[in-house]
Amino acid sequence: MERGEREERVVVKGEGKVMDVSLKELSGMLEEFAKERDWEKYHSPRNLLLAMVGEVGELSEIFMWKGEVARGLPNWKESEKEHLGEELSDVLLYLIRLADICDIDLADAATRKIEKNAVKYPATIIRE
Amino acid sequence: MERGEREERVVVKGEGKVMDVSLKELSGMLEEFAKERDWEKYHSPRNLLLAMVGEVGELSEIFMWKGEVARGLPNWKESEKEHLGEELSDVLLYLIRLADICDIDLADAATRKIEKNAVKYPATIIRE
Amino acid sequence: MERGEREERVVVKGEGKVMDVSLKELSGMLEEFAKERDWEKYHSPRNLLLAMVGEVGELSEIFMWKGEVARGLPNWKESEKEHLGEELSDVLLYLIRLADICDIDLADAATRKIEKNAVKYPATIIRE
Amino acid sequence: MERGEREERVVVKGEGKVMDVSLKELSGMLEEFAKERDWEKYHSPRNLLLAMVGEVGELSEIFMWKGEVARGLPNWKESEKEHLGEELSDVLLYLIRLADICDIDLADAATRKIEKNAVKYPATIIRE
Repeated sequence: MERGEREERVVVKGEGKVMDVSLKELSGMLEEFAKERDWEKYHSPRNLLLAMVGEVGELSEIFMWKGEVARGLPNWKESEKEHLGEELSDVLLYLIRLADICDIDLADAATRKIEKNAVKYPATIIRE
Repeated sequence: MERGEREERVVVKGEGKVMDVSLKELSGMLEEFAKERDWEKYHSPRNLLLAMVGEVGELSEIFMWKGEVARGLPNWKESEKEHLGEELSDVLLYLIRLADICDIDLADAATRKIEKNAVKYPATIIRE
Repeated sequence: MERGEREERVVVKGEGKVMDVSLKELSGMLEEFAKERDWEKYHSPRNLLLAMVGEVGELSEIFMWKGEVARGLPNWKESEKEHLGEELSDVLLYLIRLADICDIDLADAATRKIEKNAVKYPATIIRE
Repeated sequence: MERGEREERVVVKGEGKVMDVSLKELSGMLEEFAKERDWEKYHSPRNLLLAMVGEVGELSEIFMWKGEVARGLPNWKESEKEHLGEELSDVLLYLIRLADICDIDLADAATRKIEKNAVKYPATIIRE
């Protein structure tokens, strides 16, 4: 993804499944959600951070007694994967909200962090 | 955002600033990043989860001795905000990678979680 | 507390209240607890670590929407303090168990860490 | 350990190794430590909680890329175990300090939590 150029992305949604969503779209939804419930008064940086830590705890509880877990979760029940998707989402949503409340542009910061990491850890695999 | 319809989003990027990025785009970048460094072997679910908890710790350290912090971080130095953006990004990137390794579609899960929350907590503010 | 000398401590317990307990005593209780339930097989280092992170999340949830909290929790209900005591305990108990399973002597490590910190951060207040 | 009776514990310390330490003893050391450095002003409940989350992150980083870890850490270097002991201690010390600042008697709470768990999860192994 190069900068300075214009880019169009298309999100095809069909059969009720969201194919993709952007950080700014999620930000917008969360802001609207908080406004409609008059919850903005609770959304201070440290409140949101602790709420996120709470969700990280719930996410950890899913994995806690399982020993090592294989990629793709081959033996997990559909209900467990559903639960996992919800807890991952909870962490994500509080994280995005925390960034917004702190006036941090997470889309820009995350993209730049990947670029920074690419410089810090040069690629070792040459692909032809 | 209604489902079942086709949607076009535009990401305008200029002056080196990324205006928006989607979860799937970040997923793609992270997968490529891991492949190019032969790091996929380290990316098991629990390894990534613990790496994410490590980043949550670093994020918390930014806020730990500050007492209550106001929205928008009015008195923070630019370097502190930069640091905060990096730590928020680190949590985000491990979270996205964790979801991918677990075969969880985070874009779909997060959007549905917002919808589920909207049912669970009905809006109280009537907007005309 | 000087080393190399013999020390006797007394725990006076009356009216059902435990006045003090040592790390080794808690270790012993937890080991016995796990053995009696055949739970030792679940107590691997990373399982216990994730269980502890789960409890840290529950602890954080107690504080998440409260804004700044004053020392001594002046306006908290007795039931809230009771709940807080339980979550603090859950973190403590998994932490002690994790140390034991890793063969780390937490009593020795913690005491030495305080001494190390005392060297790293010299006291600034002169008391006469 | 039955209540209502008097108990004597002995901590034998020799060769510079602390054999045991109680929660109240650690509390006392930490209070004195904070007082001597005029750090009490920083020790609000949420500051200490976030400091503890920071240490939980550092503890997690020790385990993050290791895959499953065997009990007793058979292949760990002495320096790694030393580091682990320090991070476990950091979590413990902030936890104890957090309890004290909240006026929670952790020794009593932890002992009662074990008793509560014993009722909640009855022992299944009959020992003759």
